[in-house]
Amino acid sequence: MNHKEISRAVIGRLPRYYRYLGELKEEGIERISSNELSIRMGVTASQIRQDLNHFGGFGQQGYGYNVNNLHEEIAKILGLNIEHKLIIIGAGNLGQALANYGNFEKRGFHIVGLFDENKDLQNTNKRDIPLYPMEHLEEFIASHQVDIAVLAIPKAAAVEVADRLVACGIKGIWNFAHTDLSLPKDVIVENVHLSESLMQLSYRMIGK
Amino acid sequence: MNHKEISRAVIGRLPRYYRYLGELKEEGIERISSNELSIRMGVTASQIRQDLNHFGGFGQQGYGYNVNNLHEEIAKILGLNIEHKLIIIGAGNLGQALANYGNFEKRGFHIVGLFDENKDLQNTNKRDIPLYPMEHLEEFIASHQVDIAVLAIPKAAAVEVADRLVACGIKGIWNFAHTDLSLPKDVIVENVHLSESLMQLSYRMIGK
Repeated sequence: MNHKEISRAVIGRLPRYYRYLGELKEEGIERISSNELSIRMGVTASQIRQDLNHFGGFGQQGYGYNVNNLHEEIAKILGLNIEHKLIIIGAGNLGQALANYGNFEKRGFHIVGLFDENKDLQNTNKRDIPLYPMEHLEEFIASHQVDIAVLAIPKAAAVEVADRLVACGIKGIWNFAHTDLSLPKDVIVENVHLSESLMQLSYRMIGK
Repeated sequence: MNHKEISRAVIGRLPRYYRYLGELKEEGIERISSNELSIRMGVTASQIRQDLNHFGGFGQQGYGYNVNNLHEEIAKILGLNIEHKLIIIGAGNLGQALANYGNFEKRGFHIVGLFDENKDLQNTNKRDIPLYPMEHLEEFIASHQVDIAVLAIPKAAAVEVADRLVACGIKGIWNFAHTDLSLPKDVIVENVHLSESLMQLSYRMIGK
């Protein structure tokens, strides 16, 4: 499997397969045909087959998909079998919302610390994730083998903080700041630009 | 302009053009060639021309783009010249984070109320957006002409709340609950599935 040959569109759909298969598992369903899966997910059966064929298929003629097996295989493709240590930069409402979201943990994303430049900030975190001042950043990343940092800070501070994170060896940045980061190629940046999503909603509301 | 003919990929890029043009405006830059814009944005000049040609082009041979004009035109395409009234369902950390984000207001998205089923919840909102119990939902939407609802609640409650919203005439749902909503066709749903974005980061980290 060569990751580079697979389009962003296909990858973008994998987490949704993973979610539906997880729900089927919870319902105790052991196998499903691509037709049944397509009805549930509201996509065509041929799309499902095409998407999964990028990774070797997994289905069997006349049997369909083994739910448990396919769920595990997609987890592996997405790297959910690898444990990640995350820190969140910015302990405002957004940072705390992300820290409180227990589902990340289930998928191998362990949030080990929150950081904020405001030393007087109260830690409202419900999951006892410790809050540190920004001066501790470098030492903490080194001693805790953190590999992913979440940027839940305003745009103005994001570039400088991202450079600090990269200098400490962070390899993945989940960026909620509304700016594009120019970082070395071996650092992966995944952007969540919320206002862009809201603009797409607005676009689709006038176009319908 | 027929919205239906334009791909999601093109639409997905428009807010980024809008952001870059806004930054150019702030810097006092009045015109820009597609080459200069392409360098700034890290995309090809031909991509920019192709994307904007879907809406009539806007560029002039030998002149490039008028920044102010193009910024306004993209705003219109995205519907940012139309005022929207939003309510946020769920006044936890995520709901409060969204309510506190002043930039939505600048783009015509006015957040007029927060709703939560927990009547004892403290309103930590910094922008004086009022917090109401869920019983007031129907009356509030009718009397305030709300057109967009933001779902910042867990998956389990989302389907029922979405049905209530649609029954009140809400035409756009910005859905942060990790589930797909099956709603009438004239209701536009824009999903923000945060854990799916995190999975894509993880995928790209192993693939690099």
